Amino acid sequence: MRILLTIEYNGKDFAGWQSQPNKRTVQGVLEDALSSVCGEKIVLNASGRTDAGVHALKQMAHFDTSSSLPYNKYPQIVNHLLDNDVSIINSQLVDDDFHARFNVKKKSYLYRCYQSKVSRPLMENFAFQLTYDIDVEKMRRAAAKLVGEHDFTSFKKASDIKLDCVRTIYDISINQKDDVLEFIVCGSGFMHNMVRIIVGTLIDIGKGLLEENEIDVMLEKKNRSCAGTTLPACGLYLYNVEY
Amino acid sequence: MRILLTIEYNGKDFAGWQSQPNKRTVQGVLEDALSSVCGEKIVLNASGRTDAGVHALKQMAHFDTSSSLPYNKYPQIVNHLLDNDVSIINSQLVDDDFHARFNVKKKSYLYRCYQSKVSRPLMENFAFQLTYDIDVEKMRRAAAKLVGEHDFTSFKKASDIKLDCVRTIYDISINQKDDVLEFIVCGSGFMHNMVRIIVGTLIDIGKGLLEENEIDVMLEKKNRSCAGTTLPACGLYLYNVEY
Repeated sequence: MRILLTIEYNGKDFAGWQSQPNKRTVQGVLEDALSSVCGEKIVLNASGRTDAGVHALKQMAHFDTSSSLPYNKYPQIVNHLLDNDVSIINSQLVDDDFHARFNVKKKSYLYRCYQSKVSRPLMENFAFQLTYDIDVEKMRRAAAKLVGEHDFTSFKKASDIKLDCVRTIYDISINQKDDVLEFIVCGSGFMHNMVRIIVGTLIDIGKGLLEENEIDVMLEKKNRSCAGTTLPACGLYLYNVEY
Repeated sequence: MRILLTIEYNGKDFAGWQSQPNKRTVQGVLEDALSSVCGEKIVLNASGRTDAGVHALKQMAHFDTSSSLPYNKYPQIVNHLLDNDVSIINSQLVDDDFHARFNVKKKSYLYRCYQSKVSRPLMENFAFQLTYDIDVEKMRRAAAKLVGEHDFTSFKKASDIKLDCVRTIYDISINQKDDVLEFIVCGSGFMHNMVRIIVGTLIDIGKGLLEENEIDVMLEKKNRSCAGTTLPACGLYLYNVEY
């Protein structure tokens, strides 16, 4: 049977989602624990990879097993084998042709920042520090220009060799509460570093390093060097996956 | 001159506020850094101690120095000497007779819980997990009974030998947002474990282990064994100190 897991993790001490030799990865520790309880080699297929340091409030991954363990009991069966920074939140049975990556309709990422002249220990590893004032309305107008179907070549990591860079952004919301600024970016799919470059570019616009109208040029030029800063992983959370 | 610091810390890797030989404490690391920049032995006087694992969004502490460093520049001068889990947020000049502990008018603590059947990695060390349903309205009615001037002997750690246990609780607010439940307890002063026992008792009432009317008996009996559970440190934050 095919089982779909909902997974939460604190990315700080992981070298990202994807298994790598001699590195602690989310996929690696979960596959080890699942293989041990299922009594067979388990391979996880996630909705997508996350980089080192990136958190997930809701990652989804499926696996096939011939184990007779009850499909909805994996949180109870597996979590006590895991360290405190990763947890299976839910497990459910899915059709054999369901695929955690190929069936994704929408994905959302949260990027969390805080505004402070001094570093805030309770935000450390969970949000990116902004030490300057930013114009939120200007960022909202720029974000609106990114919504829709576009070629996002300028907004992917230069070394990402994907050829088809057309993606749809459904929404970018920017919420400010006290000193915390949260960006939620919802789209059809994302390329490597795409959310970190989108939010980094919006912040560059918010602090006046770039102009909001330059978004059109960035989309048009299809060149990474035209867009803004890549923000660090610590503020990024895989927020939702919709099928 | 006498300088008052506002300090934030993540309590996870500290053996509490107070200096202890061979242990990493907030007071210890701050006094070391301040002594090094001031070129003289610095002694910090805090608004009060916090236990191992307890966080502070706003701790206040004063010190005297003959250093000519600008009184308002201590965040910039000291923070780069500190690890990421403690930070000076502000520094200000105060009168020579001001005392960070004796002049306190009100203190507030936040206790943060989350409701979930499974442990949540992104809440780990920052909130206490509640795995059961609780009746928030019942807790609010019980909390109202604690507000006012009372002898809180039943709500202090049994080994705390303080004789005068009369304190005033000004307010206990309980806010629920999604799966997060936050208690803010504001009072004239708090004894050892007092907030953790107050919130633990309210939660025991919320889940039906104790009755809301038993609060009156607990206050009257002046015996620690009459009140409820002491909650763990991870959910507790020193939230505000008012002078």
